[in-house]
Amino acid sequence: MRTLDWVDEAIEMIDQTQLPWQEVTLVIDNVADLVAAIQRLSVRGAPAIGVAGAYGVVVAACAEDPVQRSAAFEALVASLRGARPTAVNLSLMVDRVAATARASGVDAALVEAHRVRDEELAASVAMGDVGADLVIELTHRPSVRAMTICNTGGLATVERGTALAVIQTLHERGALQEAIPVETRPLLQGARLTTWELDRMGARYRLAVDSAGPFLLAQGAADVVLIGADRIAANGDTANKIGSFSLALGARHAGVPFIVVAPESTFDAATPDGGSIEVEYRSDDEVTEFAGTKTTAFGAGAVNPAFDITPASLITAIVTDKRIIRP
Amino acid sequence: MRTLDWVDEAIEMIDQTQLPWQEVTLVIDNVADLVAAIQRLSVRGAPAIGVAGAYGVVVAACAEDPVQRSAAFEALVASLRGARPTAVNLSLMVDRVAATARASGVDAALVEAHRVRDEELAASVAMGDVGADLVIELTHRPSVRAMTICNTGGLATVERGTALAVIQTLHERGALQEAIPVETRPLLQGARLTTWELDRMGARYRLAVDSAGPFLLAQGAADVVLIGADRIAANGDTANKIGSFSLALGARHAGVPFIVVAPESTFDAATPDGGSIEVEYRSDDEVTEFAGTKTTAFGAGAVNPAFDITPASLITAIVTDKRIIRP
Repeated sequence: MRTLDWVDEAIEMIDQTQLPWQEVTLVIDNVADLVAAIQRLSVRGAPAIGVAGAYGVVVAACAEDPVQRSAAFEALVASLRGARPTAVNLSLMVDRVAATARASGVDAALVEAHRVRDEELAASVAMGDVGADLVIELTHRPSVRAMTICNTGGLATVERGTALAVIQTLHERGALQEAIPVETRPLLQGARLTTWELDRMGARYRLAVDSAGPFLLAQGAADVVLIGADRIAANGDTANKIGSFSLALGARHAGVPFIVVAPESTFDAATPDGGSIEVEYRSDDEVTEFAGTKTTAFGAGAVNPAFDITPASLITAIVTDKRIIRP
Repeated sequence: MRTLDWVDEAIEMIDQTQLPWQEVTLVIDNVADLVAAIQRLSVRGAPAIGVAGAYGVVVAACAEDPVQRSAAFEALVASLRGARPTAVNLSLMVDRVAATARASGVDAALVEAHRVRDEELAASVAMGDVGADLVIELTHRPSVRAMTICNTGGLATVERGTALAVIQTLHERGALQEAIPVETRPLLQGARLTTWELDRMGARYRLAVDSAGPFLLAQGAADVVLIGADRIAANGDTANKIGSFSLALGARHAGVPFIVVAPESTFDAATPDGGSIEVEYRSDDEVTEFAGTKTTAFGAGAVNPAFDITPASLITAIVTDKRIIRP
């Protein structure tokens, strides 16, 4: 299923903040609403935000046509670029479509935005195919049990995803025995979003708490671990959602392949290794509360790293839309 | 602080189901209420349940005095024994005090129940002292940062606890820089109960999600990991709360000591190794809900191991009330 697209001169997207409780489709036809949707995480995942930003430029161009030397258009573009400053895809894709709009007008900008979307789709299809082939080669099994963390599916891209695209491809080939997503505290993307996507694709799955992952691997409950990536350093060290490193340790202990699935754009040649990646620590509330309910003693503080670094030595392979790297 | 005791002819205990939101003291003077309190987990932790059962026999004996050949007394004893059939301490302590009551009457039973309580207290003090000495020896630090999981404090025993007793002893010696409890999904004993105990003792601490434990260890955020135990096999393999194994892998990777703290009674000579320990899998709801709120797609299933097995090869030392074992 497509989680974000251009329909009838507007952006349509599933509101991820309502999942899994409600399936609400947002129809967005102005930049202010799109910026708000990005900021409240109605759309999340770097590739998905990039596509949203690309179509956002088209919305801006429609509103301010002709855009050449239009201060109003440039202000809208700047607000899109700044909606989430840390997601590099957003500014890259906004700049790309804005340049087309300035050079060739609104219709050309829409063609370019579609191209951005289609490139994401093609990358997801490619990662799914290459990854599924690799999983079957490495596990020597006709039907695979795959563990994964966070949400790396269509919701994070536009359709299919990265690590979850591999699981979907295995499922479509009849080669998925079971998926084991872990819930992904503190924000529960695995519980909230990945179970919803697995439900939609009709795959068999069971959810586990994050800390059960390594033990389930030791018990022989999964044949492979598949994760996405936020950034991959030049030496293959990989930053991804907190809990990924723990699954990598469990996979190594159990002798199970541990595979990173991410588009080429995730490689950061300027970062030599994991030690050079700055780890983002987020707010205490994410750990000490859930859905507004305090879970701790009054006044408890927290230490809340949002992602961790898995050293290349624990990674069996990195699958991109173009190649397989074996660190 | 004492979490359970005999006060004015009745059992007083903190209601653990209300923590950390409210500190409610239950006053229990009949066996039916005690059985209900044990079953709804108002008191939990094998040693604490054992002491509660011991005093429960006194309550039964007071009600049915004289107890010799009293069918009513025996029925109450049987209901106490069966309140939680899997907690071996409960039946052991109930049988011990009931035998005294039958042989020597109510007053002698109360003396024996106090003895059960005092033995637990002495064991906690001993584990705290021996464990704190060992931590200082192994870490070579004047002030220690200690990671722990679940609740192993006074709430699980009567006062002080097992692994958390070591942390308390370090704190009392001025040798605790910081505790890092992990929240312990799915039932959040670390978030709900351990932060409350650390607050009470005035220790510095920060809570982390379970899956952050191994990464924080890799980052050098803790000097030692201290856990309790549900059962220790003859070869030292240790069953404990789910997530313990993952911390053990993280501690090994980081070169940090991993110490199990448990009373001698936790050793099970009849179980040769971890592979012989049956792993309890609990209800899906614990994973698919968080503090009463559904977190997953409708109909999502789960795989929910309640504990895991840490192989002896990953354990630096086991501290009991009588000795230190280094597997």
